[in-house]
This record gives sequence, structure tokens and C-alpha cells, in this order.
Amino acid sequence: MAMQESKKKYFGGFQHRKFHDSKVCGCKMSLGVYLPEAYYAEESPVPVIYYLSGLTCTDENASQKSGIQRYADEHGIAVVFPDTSPRGHNVDGESDSWDFGVGAGFYINATESKWKHWKMYDYVTKELPVYLMEEFPNIDTTNASLMGHSMGGHGALTIFFKNYNKYKSVSAFSPICNPINCPWGKKAFGGYLGANLEAWKQYDATELAKGYKGPKTEIFVDQGTADSFLEEQLLPENLKAAVEANPSIDMRLEYRDGYDHSYFYIASFVEDHIQFHAKHLKAEF
Amino acid sequence: MAMQESKKKYFGGFQHRKFHDSKVCGCKMSLGVYLPEAYYAEESPVPVIYYLSGLTCTDENASQKSGIQRYADEHGIAVVFPDTSPRGHNVDGESDSWDFGVGAGFYINATESKWKHWKMYDYVTKELPVYLMEEFPNIDTTNASLMGHSMGGHGALTIFFKNYNKYKSVSAFSPICNPINCPWGKKAFGGYLGANLEAWKQYDATELAKGYKGPKTEIFVDQGTADSFLEEQLLPENLKAAVEANPSIDMRLEYRDGYDHSYFYIASFVEDHIQFHAKHLKAEF
Repeated sequence: MAMQESKKKYFGGFQHRKFHDSKVCGCKMSLGVYLPEAYYAEESPVPVIYYLSGLTCTDENASQKSGIQRYADEHGIAVVFPDTSPRGHNVDGESDSWDFGVGAGFYINATESKWKHWKMYDYVTKELPVYLMEEFPNIDTTNASLMGHSMGGHGALTIFFKNYNKYKSVSAFSPICNPINCPWGKKAFGGYLGANLEAWKQYDATELAKGYKGPKTEIFVDQGTADSFLEEQLLPENLKAAVEANPSIDMRLEYRDGYDHSYFYIASFVEDHIQFHAKHLKAEF
Repeated sequence: MAMQESKKKYFGGFQHRKFHDSKVCGCKMSLGVYLPEAYYAEESPVPVIYYLSGLTCTDENASQKSGIQRYADEHGIAVVFPDTSPRGHNVDGESDSWDFGVGAGFYINATESKWKHWKMYDYVTKELPVYLMEEFPNIDTTNASLMGHSMGGHGALTIFFKNYNKYKSVSAFSPICNPINCPWGKKAFGGYLGANLEAWKQYDATELAKGYKGPKTEIFVDQGTADSFLEEQLLPENLKAAVEANPSIDMRLEYRDGYDHSYFYIASFVEDHIQFHAKHLKAEF
């Protein structure tokens, strides 16, 4: 990973790549920040969407491949692309598997001492907004939404349910909807959180949906039918069942016929997601 | 490079990755092929744009980062993404520099015996259309246009000038417009063609524009003003001067204020290019 900051004009705005020292992760973290033309042109600050990426990704994959910036620029919304884990700690085994350790932070706070730096939940929800306010003062971090893909879809949903007062809306592409019941989730939660099932449930979208007691909300989940991870790992029907039992949550579940788990799929439908979030974010103006 | 063929739904069509045995390059070549929804839906075959990529790229960079497929799908045009050189010959020194050898075929037919497999001109203009007709019979390879970026912009322009009866239109992002007068071109042409300046001129867009005697045509060149290669390597003003002296060519030269040489720049303006080509390709219906 080239450690060089950059700023490149992209549609009406600029795609930034930044690095900053993270206290909670104990290392330098990279991130992408797309600032729409409205960031520079308008007096009022712009809303922001956090785009949380999936396993093996860095901050760059969605920045380069999702095509989200075109639509974010049209709607005057900033997009922040965090990395997917701490890097550079050289924890024994951190790079042995593609679904655990580096590139696989799962947006949780690890409690096992070996993984003490894996604090992606605090990084995204607490440290990153403060950094953004300092670095990009015309981003309104109080007018924020969440989206993500796969592991990042899990991150977006769980962060939203746990912080419904801090975010306006959530959407997800092919999210891991019930990690406590799938191999990816069991491996990650077991490694980071130990054997305590109650701790696991605090980071499980399906469990959190069961217990959600916030204001009436609508979540948007998008899923390709040709996704090879659908049946074993993603389990959207489990989330759907939980939501149907909770009158405080409506779920827009869009199955996309023939689409897989890739960025080609994301790019095909990301405009729908920006429109969904724009509706919730613009309501604040 | 993972050598696995794939087919992924993308907007209304499918992004294919294919491999085939190339006689002219003496090796297996990879390519991307985007087929729009119209390829499957309509009885009449669809037109095609060849997208030629720049130095260091494979067939995958533009496939994944340019965003061109959205617009190609809207207009019912197929897009073919060839690789940028032969691979796997293990010619001594082929990977020593990023601007010569592997990833740097320059869309010419090398005459120096050491580089005898570097026949990207014949590959793109002769072998690839035959392969496409066999593999994707609903692509109309007689209704074809060219576009490219940087080294690929040079390729698109020179192939068009030399074969104006075979292609309907040409456009280029930040093309190398006058390779015989820039460091990249001198290094490549010297290596592949030897010291014969007359041979170099046969692959130089500015020289070919001077001698173009085909029907009246309009070429479209797009250039970012913040492109760090602009002054030393790209030289669009040399091409512009040649075109202004030739009444058979009009040149639409768009300078884009503040954009650089990256895919962020390409993605910002690729819709304009598809519209330009659609006008020329649709004229055949």
C-alpha cells in the first residue's frame, strides 16, 4: 500500500486519500474522502455517508470501483471510505487468513488481548468523526448515514442499530446479516471476542433488530441472487424475520436477479442507495 | 494475474473476462468484453468500441474503474478491453521498466527480432475482430469505434488514421499525441522498431494526421490540465497543429480544468465519449 496522500478531481469534487494517526487502533490509518462540489460551493455544510468495505478491502477498493461519487456529487453528499482493520501491528497470524486479522476488522471492539488494537467500532463511530471535523470542517458529521458491503454491510447495520440517534439511515449491499450463525462471523467473533455468546449478539444485526427500540425506521438491504456467499454466510432472511417481528423497523429487501458479490454488482445499484440516503439526509435542511 | 474466465452481471448486461490463444502475439491473451442488454435482447447485432488502455494496465483496469459500461449499456454498445502487451514470453528485460516491454505494447508491430511477439497492432486490428466474431456473434465488428487512454489513446488515434475505412470514430483521453518527440515514444519506438525514423512515423498520430487523406472526419481528444505528463509526454498541441493544416480532420480538443491522468478523470468524462461514438455508430442503423 503506497503511503502517499492524494487529491484528485473526480466529477465536480475531489477524491482525497488521507492518513492519520489513530489512537484507538494504535497505528496510522488510511482513508478515502470524497468531497462533492457542494462542499466548496455552498455555505451550509454537506451531509456525509460512511461507506464500510468488505473483507480484504482497503479504503481504496470502493473509492475506485463503486462509482458512488457520481451520485454523491449530484446530491451534494460527502462519502468517507475507512480502511477495514488496523495494519502494521504484526500480530502473530494477523495475515494468515483473508477473513480474519488484517483486512477483517468486522467493525467491532475486540476484547481478546491479542487483538487489543482491533477497535474498528470505536474508530468508525468515535474517532473518525472527530478527525473529519478537524480536517474537513464543511462536512456535517451530525448529518450522517451508513452504508457498506458484505462485512461492511454488517458493520453499517450494527452501528446503526446501536446508534440510531447518531445516524439518519442505513443501507447495505450483501451484508453479513447474522454473523453469530455463519462461518465468517463465528470465526471472527470467536477470535476477537472469545467464547461469550452474549458479547457476540451485541454485534449481530439480526439480534440487534430483535431488540431495537428506537424511532420507526426503514433499512435498505440489497442482495444479488447469484452471490456465492448468500446461503452460507449472508442470511438476509434471518434479518428479515427479525424485522417482521419488530414494528419499529421496515426493511426494503431488494433481490437483484443474476448479480453476484462483486463491485460490478455494487456499481449497478449504488445510485438507488444514494437516493435512499439523500431522502433521509436532506430532511434535515 | 488470476487466469480464470468470468461473467458478471453489470448494469443491464454482462462483463466477461476471457482468455484466448493469440497467434500473432504467440501467447495466451486476456481481455474484457462488456455486452450490453441489447446484445441479448435485439435481433440486430450491436456495435462495438475497442477501449485501449495505458502503460502498466491489463485488460482489467478500465473494466473495473472507468465506469464506461453504464453508458455503453444505455446506448446498446459492446466494449472490448484488450490487454496492453503479450505476456509470459520471458524476454530478457521485459519487466525491467514500466514503460517498455510487458504492459507497454504501444499498439505497434515490433520489427526488432528480440520483440518479435510484440505485435499489438495486428492483434487489435486483425486477430481480435476474428476472435470476437466467433465468440460473440451478435457483436457487429464492422460497426466499430476506437478509444483509449494515454498509450492507448495513441493506439486508438494511430489505428484510426491507418484504417479509417474500418472504424467509424475515434476518441482519446490524454493520448500520447506525438511519440516520436517524447521520451516514452522514443524509448518504445527505438526498442521495438530500431533507429529508423520513417518506421516511427507510421505509428505517430501527429505525423499520420499530416498525411491523412481519408473522408472528412472529426476526432475527439480529452485532456486534463493537471496531468503531470502533459507537457513532456502527451503534446496535444502538436496534434492540433497538424490537424489544423489538414482540412479533412476536425479535432474536438477538450481541456478539463484541474483533472489529472487517473481513472477518476476518465470516469468523470467517459459519458461524453460514449455519446460521441454513439452518434457515429448509430448512423449505420
